[in-house]
Amino acid sequence: MREVYVVGVGMSEWGEIWQKSIRDLFVDAARAAISNAGVDRLDSLYVGCMSGGLFVGQEHIGALMADYLGMRGLPAVRVESACASGGMAFRQAFLEVASGASDVVMASGVEKMTDVSGDGCTDALATAADQEYEVFHGATFPGLYAMMAHAHMARYGTTREMLSAVAAKNHRNGAKNPVAQYPFEITAEAVSKSVMVADPLRILDCSPITDGAAAVIVTTKEVAQKLKRPYIKVLGSAIGTDSIALAQRADITTIKSATIATEKALKMAGKAIGDIRFAEVHDCFTIAEIMVAESIGKFAPGKAGEAILSCETSLEGKFPINPSGGLKSKGHPVGATGVAQIVEVYKQLTGQAENGRQIPKSPTLGMAQNMGGSGASSVVHVLEVAG
Amino acid sequence: MREVYVVGVGMSEWGEIWQKSIRDLFVDAARAAISNAGVDRLDSLYVGCMSGGLFVGQEHIGALMADYLGMRGLPAVRVESACASGGMAFRQAFLEVASGASDVVMASGVEKMTDVSGDGCTDALATAADQEYEVFHGATFPGLYAMMAHAHMARYGTTREMLSAVAAKNHRNGAKNPVAQYPFEITAEAVSKSVMVADPLRILDCSPITDGAAAVIVTTKEVAQKLKRPYIKVLGSAIGTDSIALAQRADITTIKSATIATEKALKMAGKAIGDIRFAEVHDCFTIAEIMVAESIGKFAPGKAGEAILSCETSLEGKFPINPSGGLKSKGHPVGATGVAQIVEVYKQLTGQAENGRQIPKSPTLGMAQNMGGSGASSVVHVLEVAG
Repeated sequence: MREVYVVGVGMSEWGEIWQKSIRDLFVDAARAAISNAGVDRLDSLYVGCMSGGLFVGQEHIGALMADYLGMRGLPAVRVESACASGGMAFRQAFLEVASGASDVVMASGVEKMTDVSGDGCTDALATAADQEYEVFHGATFPGLYAMMAHAHMARYGTTREMLSAVAAKNHRNGAKNPVAQYPFEITAEAVSKSVMVADPLRILDCSPITDGAAAVIVTTKEVAQKLKRPYIKVLGSAIGTDSIALAQRADITTIKSATIATEKALKMAGKAIGDIRFAEVHDCFTIAEIMVAESIGKFAPGKAGEAILSCETSLEGKFPINPSGGLKSKGHPVGATGVAQIVEVYKQLTGQAENGRQIPKSPTLGMAQNMGGSGASSVVHVLEVAG
Repeated sequence: MREVYVVGVGMSEWGEIWQKSIRDLFVDAARAAISNAGVDRLDSLYVGCMSGGLFVGQEHIGALMADYLGMRGLPAVRVESACASGGMAFRQAFLEVASGASDVVMASGVEKMTDVSGDGCTDALATAADQEYEVFHGATFPGLYAMMAHAHMARYGTTREMLSAVAAKNHRNGAKNPVAQYPFEITAEAVSKSVMVADPLRILDCSPITDGAAAVIVTTKEVAQKLKRPYIKVLGSAIGTDSIALAQRADITTIKSATIATEKALKMAGKAIGDIRFAEVHDCFTIAEIMVAESIGKFAPGKAGEAILSCETSLEGKFPINPSGGLKSKGHPVGATGVAQIVEVYKQLTGQAENGRQIPKSPTLGMAQNMGGSGASSVVHVLEVAG
């Protein structure tokens, strides 16, 4: 396998962006990444998108985006794994460069979620769960994660305060992120008192509905060196899966797909979890961040909540989690989220995180964990500063 | 890049399969492919699917299928490029094996199209066209291909008889294919007299709505040799794209994406189009087969119709096209079609085509061209018998 690098990143506006279409959002992010990397061509394009069909009546996203980027003819494919679509698109770009088939590949993700009305958004997101055994019977994602939260609380004594601490910490980070949909701080008390959505999850435990796109340039060492821009190396890349329906899992207090993917990615990288200095993880709900922090092996089962309460995962802590603000504060345009995690890891590793969001003492090794559904898919990347 | 091989293939039933769900269809094809190859493991799974969301309310198809195959934990990703989703899934499997990341990868495709009611199927398929500039204004695929047919007829004198000859020829082949949805012959006269759908395209110019799945095992030379089953080599793999909206193309009498992809795939294979002995091409409408036969460089512009009329592309002709029966007779479960093309090329190259469907004189080199939308995406593979 050839060595693979990331050499430039770009983001569109994130939020409720009524004045831009899905293609506008993609092009904004893609052009920003091309400009940031300084590349003069692309060999191939991957677009992560969860449900163009249900959100905006548009499938066939790959060719469409190549065209609107002004690169008609460019090989282009859409990749989907629910909310892990972006991370999966990045992995496909990694494999294409690793194979030697292409030298300069764009990995991108986009979702335009606010154009649907009524229950359209909840219904579209629900297609990431098991249609026959969950969704048909009325399950939605807040409900599924609420069941996981109750089970985690019952087994490990995880508390309301721990959940709230996740949201407050991520908003502290996101307040410093110029792209964040909700770039302001919130108190843990405000989270604890916010409106109930699905007991025990309250509205401020939930990541928002977001329009947005993200893109990164994936390339070879030779190209990365020639561009004379900061670059990072992809040391490990792996996918894990689990049953899509919660009822069929051995244990709903852990995300097994994240454990599988992390172990494989670390093995590929030749690293241990203790070597990793920080992580972007998939905090679609506050309980998800707690479960993932344990499932990746950083904290023992039932111990992540305490660590978050004691600021161990804060920006200045021993193991910062979601320096970007995470899905909670930065926003969660589902197909774009996994790529935006790579954007943040790139910025942190190359010392470019804005507004005092930079993790102290120049981290050199980070990871990104992106997941789909109630954790049926995880994709994990281990990345290291290179030049 | 490592050399990549196909070592076993499988298909589900194809047709209006009301008694099976999307997951049942996938599992039938996947198990058949595993059994046919004799592999005892998979390292990774790709599933081509155009619109699980709109057809059956189910996205997140990759993890779901890994689970229902009994392989919970297996890395699994869905790939989408409208009706080229299957061919794109095969290409991703090719890249993953070529990269060295995995040794045994399943490329599959599935679509369950008959569960939607009313205009649901036409609406779901229309998401492969440009939502803002075509679909919103009422365009559907028969209409878009009808415009291409009119333009081709006006420029080259292509006739009703030529269109009908495509359908009759493909049904002659499909009548010998045990998996075909419509395994019977039809006369050219019947096509010419069938009900008009979108002038000049009649109902028997159109491929059907189909439920079905297909799967193939993609692997290394070492594994292929150990399995002691017939295997073929992937010599070339390439994607081409074009504007998704017809109105923005330079010329609607040709499929430029097919030209781009074929030229790249042939170059990679070190072959010329004259070396290729037969092809599976994307005959979603009869005019599509004529245009693709020209766009891949096998016939000069405006000359494919005559060649088809004179039986040059029949099973016994100089350059058989769609020995499987094509989309027209075999059926067109959109996400599965591109993988089923590889199944047919495998069978033809290894001398396993059933019921007298085998191309005479043992062909050694074939190609598959799978496309999405009105030709905005094409993926082409060149395959050679190996062992």
